[in-house]
Amino acid sequence: MSKLKAAVIGATGLVGQNLVKILSKHPWFNIVSLFASKKSAGRRYCEAVKWYMDHSLPDDIGEIKVEYIGNVEGSYDVDIFFSAVPSDIAAHIEPELARRGYAIISDSSIYRMDNDVPMIIPEVNPDHLRLINEQRKSRNWSGFIVKTSNCTAAILSLSLKPILNLTKIERIIISTMQSISGAGYLGLPSMAILGNIIPYIENEEEKIECESLKILGSFYNGRILPAQFKISASCNRVPVYEGHMINVFLEMNNEIDAIDVIKAMETFIGLPQKLNLPTAPQRPIIVRKEPDRPQPILDKEASNGMAIVVGRIRNDNIGKQYLKYVVLGNNMIRGAAGTAVLIAETLKAYNFSIEYF
Amino acid sequence: MSKLKAAVIGATGLVGQNLVKILSKHPWFNIVSLFASKKSAGRRYCEAVKWYMDHSLPDDIGEIKVEYIGNVEGSYDVDIFFSAVPSDIAAHIEPELARRGYAIISDSSIYRMDNDVPMIIPEVNPDHLRLINEQRKSRNWSGFIVKTSNCTAAILSLSLKPILNLTKIERIIISTMQSISGAGYLGLPSMAILGNIIPYIENEEEKIECESLKILGSFYNGRILPAQFKISASCNRVPVYEGHMINVFLEMNNEIDAIDVIKAMETFIGLPQKLNLPTAPQRPIIVRKEPDRPQPILDKEASNGMAIVVGRIRNDNIGKQYLKYVVLGNNMIRGAAGTAVLIAETLKAYNFSIEYF
Amino acid sequence: MSKLKAAVIGATGLVGQNLVKILSKHPWFNIVSLFASKKSAGRRYCEAVKWYMDHSLPDDIGEIKVEYIGNVEGSYDVDIFFSAVPSDIAAHIEPELARRGYAIISDSSIYRMDNDVPMIIPEVNPDHLRLINEQRKSRNWSGFIVKTSNCTAAILSLSLKPILNLTKIERIIISTMQSISGAGYLGLPSMAILGNIIPYIENEEEKIECESLKILGSFYNGRILPAQFKISASCNRVPVYEGHMINVFLEMNNEIDAIDVIKAMETFIGLPQKLNLPTAPQRPIIVRKEPDRPQPILDKEASNGMAIVVGRIRNDNIGKQYLKYVVLGNNMIRGAAGTAVLIAETLKAYNFSIEYF
Amino acid sequence: MSKLKAAVIGATGLVGQNLVKILSKHPWFNIVSLFASKKSAGRRYCEAVKWYMDHSLPDDIGEIKVEYIGNVEGSYDVDIFFSAVPSDIAAHIEPELARRGYAIISDSSIYRMDNDVPMIIPEVNPDHLRLINEQRKSRNWSGFIVKTSNCTAAILSLSLKPILNLTKIERIIISTMQSISGAGYLGLPSMAILGNIIPYIENEEEKIECESLKILGSFYNGRILPAQFKISASCNRVPVYEGHMINVFLEMNNEIDAIDVIKAMETFIGLPQKLNLPTAPQRPIIVRKEPDRPQPILDKEASNGMAIVVGRIRNDNIGKQYLKYVVLGNNMIRGAAGTAVLIAETLKAYNFSIEYF
Repeated sequence: MSKLKAAVIGATGLVGQNLVKILSKHPWFNIVSLFASKKSAGRRYCEAVKWYMDHSLPDDIGEIKVEYIGNVEGSYDVDIFFSAVPSDIAAHIEPELARRGYAIISDSSIYRMDNDVPMIIPEVNPDHLRLINEQRKSRNWSGFIVKTSNCTAAILSLSLKPILNLTKIERIIISTMQSISGAGYLGLPSMAILGNIIPYIENEEEKIECESLKILGSFYNGRILPAQFKISASCNRVPVYEGHMINVFLEMNNEIDAIDVIKAMETFIGLPQKLNLPTAPQRPIIVRKEPDRPQPILDKEASNGMAIVVGRIRNDNIGKQYLKYVVLGNNMIRGAAGTAVLIAETLKAYNFSIEYF
Repeated sequence: MSKLKAAVIGATGLVGQNLVKILSKHPWFNIVSLFASKKSAGRRYCEAVKWYMDHSLPDDIGEIKVEYIGNVEGSYDVDIFFSAVPSDIAAHIEPELARRGYAIISDSSIYRMDNDVPMIIPEVNPDHLRLINEQRKSRNWSGFIVKTSNCTAAILSLSLKPILNLTKIERIIISTMQSISGAGYLGLPSMAILGNIIPYIENEEEKIECESLKILGSFYNGRILPAQFKISASCNRVPVYEGHMINVFLEMNNEIDAIDVIKAMETFIGLPQKLNLPTAPQRPIIVRKEPDRPQPILDKEASNGMAIVVGRIRNDNIGKQYLKYVVLGNNMIRGAAGTAVLIAETLKAYNFSIEYF
Repeated sequence: MSKLKAAVIGATGLVGQNLVKILSKHPWFNIVSLFASKKSAGRRYCEAVKWYMDHSLPDDIGEIKVEYIGNVEGSYDVDIFFSAVPSDIAAHIEPELARRGYAIISDSSIYRMDNDVPMIIPEVNPDHLRLINEQRKSRNWSGFIVKTSNCTAAILSLSLKPILNLTKIERIIISTMQSISGAGYLGLPSMAILGNIIPYIENEEEKIECESLKILGSFYNGRILPAQFKISASCNRVPVYEGHMINVFLEMNNEIDAIDVIKAMETFIGLPQKLNLPTAPQRPIIVRKEPDRPQPILDKEASNGMAIVVGRIRNDNIGKQYLKYVVLGNNMIRGAAGTAVLIAETLKAYNFSIEYF
Repeated sequence: MSKLKAAVIGATGLVGQNLVKILSKHPWFNIVSLFASKKSAGRRYCEAVKWYMDHSLPDDIGEIKVEYIGNVEGSYDVDIFFSAVPSDIAAHIEPELARRGYAIISDSSIYRMDNDVPMIIPEVNPDHLRLINEQRKSRNWSGFIVKTSNCTAAILSLSLKPILNLTKIERIIISTMQSISGAGYLGLPSMAILGNIIPYIENEEEKIECESLKILGSFYNGRILPAQFKISASCNRVPVYEGHMINVFLEMNNEIDAIDVIKAMETFIGLPQKLNLPTAPQRPIIVRKEPDRPQPILDKEASNGMAIVVGRIRNDNIGKQYLKYVVLGNNMIRGAAGTAVLIAETLKAYNFSIEYF
């Protein structure tokens, strides 16, 4: 099987670097182009990027000359674009690329809630990929855009999926402790967060509250019917480097024993596991039994950052229709770059034939 | 007015040091004795203590010779004892002191849930001090023990009081982000918490869940009827030096507008404010309107750590009977040492005549 | 004595806020004007500033309407200006104010090394204030500019002064661990420094190496003859909020016993102490005997941040002409705002009559 | 080649865990026994250990039943022991094992400075392994003990080796910023170090000052003649997880251009590289040209923690016989466990025939 030609847009940012890291040693994809801002264009990637990771940048990737995509004036020998640019820039690039026939997997937040744009976690809602047909029809595109979700919504929704297989949920309350990498490399001044907590992340609660309902909704008759539970979030930034932690409180329709939830999570697998996709973790959810797990420094690299780690699954003292647990996910990998690649693998596994989903 | 003679038991610990700091410049109390472990006994306090605070230890206090109280064999020229020792040690000391006629204000957790032991936040439940009568009767003591509560329960309960003046509450969910000082100076290895979160604090959730109901309960016929709402907590340790943060989610019996809650909190005062007690903050609850407050490093010293700081008071998107907010309190001061001193002031203001409450 | 009218330029920055904090309760100065960027102009100070300190902003100061000074087109009812703006902005403002007769005490780095500009630590080189005469003559100004030095140079130079009273120094090597506040509020992204060290601060080593020699130089015949020792620095940024730490290694001309250095430091006082100036610490150098001091969190507030704290004064194992010690100073206070105010007090104590120095 | 049977003593500690991690996938060694304290004995390793690393503990290793070695009463089917226990425990174990014929590579500090005990960095002084003959003779042992050095001494000495190939050094001054992992998992309370610096590490300066001279000394006539330069250290603990940083200042006998030092470091290889040993990094010294490197979070994993990373190599402004640079090394790997394994590989490469060195 010859490799697909992949391009990364926004290759010098944090998510972009994670995409480059994953794709640089990928069995199915081959990085052929790296796009970044005008300032970086023309320089070798190793010079343009402030490589923030403790893994070496592969030499051959470092030699790629960074390009500036502007308003997509050029023509590209690329099979699939991975986009990790801010929303205002994505608005200029992504629809135009899709119009011209390219496949785009995008981590930027714009268009996520559009009716005809699938927002995918391959273990949770691969059938939503069928929206691509609606998207192409309604917009008259030969290409398409698929979105990953907000990182916290991704981690939360993946943890909820096996529970929703057991019972309906009435109401969800979450409190998040999100790492500084979620704000981007320059997002948070150190004076603001060292030894501190900021109990607010702009627009984050709104994103989590609506995106989760879409992800966990059902594809019906060409559109997504959102999930019916209520969800309320309070989001906090904490002085942690990588990994988002969520305290989850559930009110369910029925009494459920925590033991059954543990079992459901531990045994949960999705399409990527069935297809044995290269980036798929063996188990997308790892359940830890120790009382003090998950923890960011110990668990953020679980299955290369592709597994979420759940702990403290317990019924509330009020009654068995109440459940609480803690979940940690790698916001850069499972919350963005890794899921984007896993989506691409899912599509590729069916040769981009949407009807299979 | 001559000053009361005060002693601190457990004077070298974190809470003990905060007691010493507050009492050392107090208009009503005079430190006459400092008790600590056998190891410290006989040394000057300035030598025995590893003074962790960025304020200087007053010279005269530093010269006090530390004593070992053992099983309370001695006799003490002391009017009031402040106790800040671990529970197992408190069990040997506090009942014996009370039996022998001393007044004890204690920050240790043992006996807190005993039927005849008042657990007090002077702004919230000063009338519970009437339990002292029951305690003396049932135990045949001439002295008495009054307890402060768990630090998080204190901060939470104080924030709830003005809301309970407006409406009944059905259910409370809290997620806490607690500072390392809450674990004591040696409590948390740096390897465990630097850049990390530990989503578990032993026994903390249980304490918060039951102590809050007692604090907010009502004194009736010689005992405390616990408050009737349900409460569920998930507790986390975060790399913050001082100050506990709580995300609070309320389900109330009625629809309440967040604006009314803001007003109720801002105007709330309690008995210490009415009595103008020396340690009482002008307002026990400070409401911040900025979207990103409270924050530990900015708000933990509010009113010398005696005011809690509340922010982000907002109705839930689900409906107006749901409310959420964030509250921060200084765990060392409002959560322990400061409240202990405020209790002593409250008692002293009425010359320890319990019938006034 | 009626208070002098003081203005702060750059009032919303970190150093500006510290100036406002110190001046807001000063017995000799009265804040009458606060200047900041165009963006802040016209707003009340309490709205314009992101007050970063854990002390409350005084209400009356918060009500002052912030002004924009531009290129100094206005006329100001101000006796003394405190300037805390970046160098490029200072270049537009400071000379023009001085030309028009105002006294300026400036924390910005521009002009520091000019021959006729005094760079002052009042305990160390108050006689350098005589340069003001040269400055006025050579520039034909009726006002004048006095500079504080680089924060690390200030802390180092103050610690060296009592040693230079004992012996000549041949060579100084320093390694610094500087807090994030030294880079300004927005200076350092949290991703860059959380749990990390950056062994480089742009231009810092050069500033320390040349400014220290000027500060410790001697006023002779209308100019400063720089000190004659050699100095070499290596500067590091560390995840500390406030307070710069320096490891100092000295090679002296003579053998000196560490005990004599300890005594010289402990007994050292300067002009501000003799004049009993309001901001002067009782002792500008505090010597700690514990093996593990100074430490930023414990010592940065020593004497309200105006005393430097020295520890581990010891001869090298090589021989007694080698000495090493550790010194910590509050970079915001002793390294900038506090020293600026102390300079103003020194000048005011002599009614700005330069001939007294 | 069949694998050698390896045992780790002190397997649950931080260095022990790193030994287990490296050996668990080693081509030449096979972990057959894990020893720990009495408390851990009899439990499976995965239960006994608080596995602190973000890499998974291999399943088969986790199943090994931990043993207690006591005073070495048993008999062991082991070819090589790796010891990572505190010195007081090492004193009971190591000599007795050596007496009974076992090979011990030890990370504990006891015996390091003994005349007949080699303290080895395989790239720097493999010829010191010849001391094993002296050791056996003088102590009448059939086995032997080889030591790694203090972690900071190891990192420093490796960085000095290529410079000493160019010139004699007169005097070395170092200031260290050492990570918390160097103190062991329970070594440093978080209250002591979060947002702080401790400018003191007990006995560390003494160890560095004497061990470096031994490592860089020369084997002559059955003993080590220590290197002749003078060395002076000031050691600091900083809130960094892993990786020790050193500011190095050299006074050399001759003028040396920094460029020549850079070249010497970049091209430096030692015996492990020539032998192509499994754990040997391709280059033991990586030179970074960026002005702000090395940094712990970016460089501590260089070549799996086996390469030290040097930056800011520059001549002093005083003159070309003065040089300064910054070096970072992984204290757990290059400073302890990794070097221990590299020593074992070096010995094994010659089938433990000492005469080859």
